[in-house]
Amino acid sequence: MTSHPDGGSVACTLDYTVDSPTEFVFQIAVTTGGAVHADERLTVTVDDAEAEAETIPASHHGGRQHLVRATPGALRVRYTATVRRDAAPPRRVSAPARVQALRPSRYCPSDRMAGFAARRFGGTDAEIVRDVTEFVRGHLRYAPVSDSSTDAADTLLAGAGVCRDYAHLVTALVRASGVPARVAAVYAPGLAPMDFHLVSEVAVDGVWRIVDATGLAPRASMIRIATGRDAADVAFSTLLTGGRLTMTRMEVLAVADGDLPGDDPGEPVSLR
Amino acid sequence: MTSHPDGGSVACTLDYTVDSPTEFVFQIAVTTGGAVHADERLTVTVDDAEAEAETIPASHHGGRQHLVRATPGALRVRYTATVRRDAAPPRRVSAPARVQALRPSRYCPSDRMAGFAARRFGGTDAEIVRDVTEFVRGHLRYAPVSDSSTDAADTLLAGAGVCRDYAHLVTALVRASGVPARVAAVYAPGLAPMDFHLVSEVAVDGVWRIVDATGLAPRASMIRIATGRDAADVAFSTLLTGGRLTMTRMEVLAVADGDLPGDDPGEPVSLR
Amino acid sequence: MTSHPDGGSVACTLDYTVDSPTEFVFQIAVTTGGAVHADERLTVTVDDAEAEAETIPASHHGGRQHLVRATPGALRVRYTATVRRDAAPPRRVSAPARVQALRPSRYCPSDRMAGFAARRFGGTDAEIVRDVTEFVRGHLRYAPVSDSSTDAADTLLAGAGVCRDYAHLVTALVRASGVPARVAAVYAPGLAPMDFHLVSEVAVDGVWRIVDATGLAPRASMIRIATGRDAADVAFSTLLTGGRLTMTRMEVLAVADGDLPGDDPGEPVSLR
Amino acid sequence: MTSHPDGGSVACTLDYTVDSPTEFVFQIAVTTGGAVHADERLTVTVDDAEAEAETIPASHHGGRQHLVRATPGALRVRYTATVRRDAAPPRRVSAPARVQALRPSRYCPSDRMAGFAARRFGGTDAEIVRDVTEFVRGHLRYAPVSDSSTDAADTLLAGAGVCRDYAHLVTALVRASGVPARVAAVYAPGLAPMDFHLVSEVAVDGVWRIVDATGLAPRASMIRIATGRDAADVAFSTLLTGGRLTMTRMEVLAVADGDLPGDDPGEPVSLR
Repeated sequence: MTSHPDGGSVACTLDYTVDSPTEFVFQIAVTTGGAVHADERLTVTVDDAEAEAETIPASHHGGRQHLVRATPGALRVRYTATVRRDAAPPRRVSAPARVQALRPSRYCPSDRMAGFAARRFGGTDAEIVRDVTEFVRGHLRYAPVSDSSTDAADTLLAGAGVCRDYAHLVTALVRASGVPARVAAVYAPGLAPMDFHLVSEVAVDGVWRIVDATGLAPRASMIRIATGRDAADVAFSTLLTGGRLTMTRMEVLAVADGDLPGDDPGEPVSLR
Repeated sequence: MTSHPDGGSVACTLDYTVDSPTEFVFQIAVTTGGAVHADERLTVTVDDAEAEAETIPASHHGGRQHLVRATPGALRVRYTATVRRDAAPPRRVSAPARVQALRPSRYCPSDRMAGFAARRFGGTDAEIVRDVTEFVRGHLRYAPVSDSSTDAADTLLAGAGVCRDYAHLVTALVRASGVPARVAAVYAPGLAPMDFHLVSEVAVDGVWRIVDATGLAPRASMIRIATGRDAADVAFSTLLTGGRLTMTRMEVLAVADGDLPGDDPGEPVSLR
Repeated sequence: MTSHPDGGSVACTLDYTVDSPTEFVFQIAVTTGGAVHADERLTVTVDDAEAEAETIPASHHGGRQHLVRATPGALRVRYTATVRRDAAPPRRVSAPARVQALRPSRYCPSDRMAGFAARRFGGTDAEIVRDVTEFVRGHLRYAPVSDSSTDAADTLLAGAGVCRDYAHLVTALVRASGVPARVAAVYAPGLAPMDFHLVSEVAVDGVWRIVDATGLAPRASMIRIATGRDAADVAFSTLLTGGRLTMTRMEVLAVADGDLPGDDPGEPVSLR
Repeated sequence: MTSHPDGGSVACTLDYTVDSPTEFVFQIAVTTGGAVHADERLTVTVDDAEAEAETIPASHHGGRQHLVRATPGALRVRYTATVRRDAAPPRRVSAPARVQALRPSRYCPSDRMAGFAARRFGGTDAEIVRDVTEFVRGHLRYAPVSDSSTDAADTLLAGAGVCRDYAHLVTALVRASGVPARVAAVYAPGLAPMDFHLVSEVAVDGVWRIVDATGLAPRASMIRIATGRDAADVAFSTLLTGGRLTMTRMEVLAVADGDLPGDDPGEPVSLR
């Protein structure tokens, strides 16, 4: 399971019209460190004048957030990075990360779904992950029926959702079955239409594996932005203080070096 | 599907210690009329003095409720009936009953479960009913994990429940699939331990059929007390006005005339 | 509290493009009987050819529904009525209606809100109704934040809603406080923009009183269409069987005879 | 707001009968570092033979967890500590801690309660905290009506709860009002009956302040065990892998050095 060196290029542009002073946190920079290197550039401007972005650690598992204090005007946040990943064995699951990935969270209330999971899924950790993934792929229809308050239990009842909902339902059911699970926000080369993407990350045999029940992009080419318990932790943009504003444009780009790999859902894939 | 004449004997005793004036509604008398005749007796006493019980129509589909105004003391409600049922074809589903049995209700929020149902169940009405029943029988573990606020969506997540929860989950999923469904509170000869019982009633081919995913008692011998959208309509006892009281004893008895019949879950059974 | 004779004129037109055979139930005709008389006309056409509408009783408290089987084409449902109401004392609250109006329902889960209500509201029934109404008027902001699955507990948390949500929150809190409460769908002269309207109906001193925390139209001029536990019972249109269709137009009209009366929220108003 | 040196003694004993191999995480050790020093001792035994406890960092904000792998038998976990705290200014709120304390969590779904909060609370951060605290103190009745799946929205509806529910409701409403809020599990000298205690911690004027709407113990004497978004993060005991077991005894002790201080709810208190 040692991977080959690979890489890619990513970019995102976010435009807002800001009507009153507003504090944002952005999570759009790739998670670097270990085997992952990025040649990157972040610019924040208000009415074309450069504004400051304070880099702060993400709440979980490495990763960075950028805190921006925007004055009224046309805010533009632009991030570009060229990413290179060395060949490396997958990272081991640490004890605190394992403990945290077993706790219920806002959008993955695994405690409420333990009964459902116990009646449907069992066996080894790998079997549970495989069966949950197949269940979610078969049960959900890809459709924009959810909103920002939809949790995994809602999605199970709705039988439909988008990538966020697929990731939450997989994460919640795997976690409810006693296997550590969390989410990763990623740039996903091959995704169409291109957007930020959310996938699950599950602990099997001591390493983190990526699960994406949508099957919309090859896992091996994904580039990690942020890691967390659910979408509450990894939102690409969070308003810290009120403020009136409108998003006017959002553009995401992700390209893999070389050809896009295939993706066999039965094959474990870990993300450096 | 015309049934043979049959019958049975039922009884129930409810004892309460009432500390302040209290108004109750009891639904413990069998639903009579049409092919169902009862030789019955209801007595209500407070400290052994007879108290009044006002008979009022049940909110749905025939049936009776008894309104009792209890003064402080030892309240005893005792009902006994010998029931005889003539051979008769099952009652047709009326248009208003059909409309009502398609609407979401407190414990059967079928609107919230329409997506789940659509992804799992389909085909003819009879196939939907069969598949929902098998799903609920397989999915639930019989265990007292619910309380009076548990609805069918909670039960789906919990993977466990008692007869009330089985009936609610069947009713909600059938209704969510577009087939009219409601509940019936019944005396159930053969049930062990003996208690009030709740089952589903679904409209297939123009007649009401009984579904009991618990399989705990033969449907043909059940004797209908009350009919409603869910347990909110058919509770055996409801407090109308506050009042301090304790239930000290509850005893239910139901015996079929002759031997208990077998029950083939694949065979449709209608309750007169 | 005996009212003066009054009346009004109402109309509604509903247009649909129906792509496959569809069964509807409409609740748009006014509730007549007792002191209320209507000179009315309902026409249902598909591509201008007359279609049949079967009148069936509404599930609650009088009122009528119309069952329509539509073939593909342009469906138009048009209802007009001239309504005359005799002076009459308000109708007494019957025992079964009282019992039913105390039970929790899909959108008014009063059982879940009993604790909240007990901590906020108390006193006589009239005081509870007054205080709940003032609380809801002050707590909610009129805004279209809800959807068809929103219940009264959701609305309490959201702090906003439309007439349906105001009616559900008043109904749920009054009912949770032990006072019988239900909803009435009405034509509401004076409402702007004109639409179907939903209000609460509460039992105080043995009669039903109208409560409308939105204050958007005078209660005395409202003309009752349907009565029920919550919006699930009184929807103006319900699809009974799937079918593909689009609503293309909806027009509601309601005019009072003579000048619109004022409305003093402190004054009890009963609807015949 | 610089505090005086103080300290205390704490102890807890947890006994379990373990029937099959089980992995636990305990969070019972006090959070040390900075101005807080502990002379402590943790012993874990199975049938009186010493078992291993692996110390791992807590998921948030310092603090430690202990991972225990228990073989079948009588498991006893015993922790004692003498704690000394130097006089020190309260710790500043770091940017990542602030961001995290604004995100919704499992038991404090602040996103769902933003509307309710916006209609009730406003002004400066300090005013919001004061008003939320008073609201929660007045709205809740101290009663064991909740279970492990109860969240802050449930508690608002229920109008009752225990310390966990008070802390969740304060935290959720403060956070929903845009002020960072989290929870702290503490040893609480003066609490009766003695138990683990949960309180809120809110960010006002750049420092963390303790809020305890129960008023059951003086805040200044509390000794921090763990910090997190809600009870999911700070449970004193978590089962990582299934296993059959029974808790047979739980004893918590907390004594302040010197006399217990008074506690003026209007006075800000920070916990080192």
